[in-house]
Amino acid sequence: MQAQIITIGDEILIGQTINTNAAYIGEELTKIQIAVSKTTVVGDEESVILQEFKSAFENNDVVIVTGGLGPTHDDITKDCIVKFFNTELEMNYEVLEDVRSIFQRRGRQMAKINETQALVPKIARVIRNTRGTAPGTWIEKDKKIFISLPGVPHEMKEMIDTEVIPGIAKLYKPENHSIKIRNLLSTGIAESTLFERLGNISELLEGAKLAFLPSQFGVKMRITAEEKNEDLALNKLSEIEQKIRSLVGRYIYGIENDTLEEVVGRLLLERGLTIAVAESCTGGLISHRITNVAGSSSYFERCVVSYSNAAKVEILNVNENTIAQYGAVSLEVARQMAEGVKSVSGTDIGLSITGILGPGGATREKPVGLVYIGICNETLCTAKKFQFSEDRLLNKDRAAQAALEILRRHLLGIPYDE
Amino acid sequence: MQAQIITIGDEILIGQTINTNAAYIGEELTKIQIAVSKTTVVGDEESVILQEFKSAFENNDVVIVTGGLGPTHDDITKDCIVKFFNTELEMNYEVLEDVRSIFQRRGRQMAKINETQALVPKIARVIRNTRGTAPGTWIEKDKKIFISLPGVPHEMKEMIDTEVIPGIAKLYKPENHSIKIRNLLSTGIAESTLFERLGNISELLEGAKLAFLPSQFGVKMRITAEEKNEDLALNKLSEIEQKIRSLVGRYIYGIENDTLEEVVGRLLLERGLTIAVAESCTGGLISHRITNVAGSSSYFERCVVSYSNAAKVEILNVNENTIAQYGAVSLEVARQMAEGVKSVSGTDIGLSITGILGPGGATREKPVGLVYIGICNETLCTAKKFQFSEDRLLNKDRAAQAALEILRRHLLGIPYDE
Repeated sequence: MQAQIITIGDEILIGQTINTNAAYIGEELTKIQIAVSKTTVVGDEESVILQEFKSAFENNDVVIVTGGLGPTHDDITKDCIVKFFNTELEMNYEVLEDVRSIFQRRGRQMAKINETQALVPKIARVIRNTRGTAPGTWIEKDKKIFISLPGVPHEMKEMIDTEVIPGIAKLYKPENHSIKIRNLLSTGIAESTLFERLGNISELLEGAKLAFLPSQFGVKMRITAEEKNEDLALNKLSEIEQKIRSLVGRYIYGIENDTLEEVVGRLLLERGLTIAVAESCTGGLISHRITNVAGSSSYFERCVVSYSNAAKVEILNVNENTIAQYGAVSLEVARQMAEGVKSVSGTDIGLSITGILGPGGATREKPVGLVYIGICNETLCTAKKFQFSEDRLLNKDRAAQAALEILRRHLLGIPYDE
Repeated sequence: MQAQIITIGDEILIGQTINTNAAYIGEELTKIQIAVSKTTVVGDEESVILQEFKSAFENNDVVIVTGGLGPTHDDITKDCIVKFFNTELEMNYEVLEDVRSIFQRRGRQMAKINETQALVPKIARVIRNTRGTAPGTWIEKDKKIFISLPGVPHEMKEMIDTEVIPGIAKLYKPENHSIKIRNLLSTGIAESTLFERLGNISELLEGAKLAFLPSQFGVKMRITAEEKNEDLALNKLSEIEQKIRSLVGRYIYGIENDTLEEVVGRLLLERGLTIAVAESCTGGLISHRITNVAGSSSYFERCVVSYSNAAKVEILNVNENTIAQYGAVSLEVARQMAEGVKSVSGTDIGLSITGILGPGGATREKPVGLVYIGICNETLCTAKKFQFSEDRLLNKDRAAQAALEILRRHLLGIPYDE
């Protein structure tokens, strides 16, 4: 069973709006094991829309269209549906009531033009819209389903959740067939190194699929298992996950939508430890991420963004001579910053970072992208050198991610290497 | 002249990644007046990709493909290009050097598999990638252009900006027709209030178009003017911009891709002023944003993220009794934090924030979303109350934006009101 998603609207075509609708629908269809064969975006032009309807309906079992259902002249999806299915529009009085009540609820006068929202293709079943004036429509023909929904995300989502997905799932019960997905999140290792360490991939996968999705935060490994039933698929996933973890487990910090700040937050809580942070080059990003986690105040005490040398000396007790001798971007200063912030805050752990993220600030010995990350607890105080690349903002992301990963490995006693 | 954008990757099809690449390319093509006829997403499957290449290349003058260029088994775009154009791969030694130097720069061992990145279709011109290992390719055939780029957004963007758009623009010059777009960025005012203050919109626009695009950072106003030539379109834009500024100019902090942190950074530099920040609820986000701007070290001295009361007292000299009397989230504490961070840092300005961003921490008198922002200079020390909403992360964004806007208005002498 496969589906195509069609998004209609010039806004999306010219990039003023990002197509989040297609992502949402794609994810929901995948969950009920309808394979998305293709996603397309077309503008508000009849001939193009009709052509897209044709090829989509020919090649798929399910077609879901969003957008182009407003009451104004530039919305033509409904007319295209009427032409494509060779039907006509008729007034649906239930929908007309829905439209009127929406205006009533908002205490607004209803412009006459909104009545056209209640005109629906004769052969369609209506999908009611409780959040807006454009109804959705559900057409079945030649054992295929053609669905049209409004483009406003929260209206579309509600209709997808309550009507569309349950409706499709009822008609298409996958028999002898189950697809399950698991995402493993790694960091601190390059995609190609990960690939090499996994060795013989096809042997490891035994027919399942593995995708590597790299970003500045690390590499996501997405495993997809397709089996005769759910149990088998889940077993297959677990088996492969185990194998992957046995080879590169130390680099895996979480699964699915976990964030590294949540993971280290949980570890700190479990161990009853507190932390303070001293940041230079990342400018507060590490602290920002740690405090994105609700409840972080139980383990996060403070952060000092010591952008100037004076701040490093005054608040963090970094030795002026050390800065003079080694420079502010050095292993020694990173160590002193971590020690300093821990000691002035009275926390169990001090985490620090200092570096040159560009575009300026580089010297002959110290290129853009050079970063030192320090970490101290009661008994140990250490720092590590990193070399990132040219882009300031990406470097910030990479450096903050590396610092949080250093913290995670510290908490778990995993050495940091690649 | 028209173009199609093809995005390749299962992760986008199944909604694990949102298709921001197509939006970016769509926007850039629109700027040089290449009409985007269609955007499609297809998975990592050869037959589907080849079919999409065929229909796209038949129906358009320009085809831009992103994704599927990684070194691992699931990346097949390059093989599809070779098949589609009936050519073959050959080693490009310039690219091989690029790939090697990327690993060298990062101080990492290069896995053998990465050498395949330097294999490019024989008939293609290479678009070099300074940020990653996958080169882009530019193929011209039958007076049409077929471009392939990596899917990693920052790599793709740089290649679009420096090679692809200039290259296409040189080949295709539009006649008797010019569309120009201008975006005005406002903050601290609701969409509906903005709309009301603008009065009679159609009179104001004289045939141009205006869209309101709200987010947690403010409302973007997008003006689109379509005229016979570029000068006329630009004049129309300037005219409308002037009218809008005369009505709601105080809320407009920038245009196009300006960020509020860049705007305040420029103002601080111009005035030769320095700043220090004391954050509680935003956890370092304000400081992170200020330091996103290259060169911010000339005006940004330090930030203290005083998440605990102890940090407020110890580093910022906030009076313990004030905290006991009014609570850490209060006008008085915000003022003392701003004064404290200014005085310990010796800067011209101190900016502070304290609040309850949720989900926990609320009391009967102090609901989630309550925030106080303080600002002090040599002669004045003031604070202002804000009430945001429920969502922790959105609240962080809103609160940091409000603090930077307070700073902007302070620097420009514009009172903060709505």
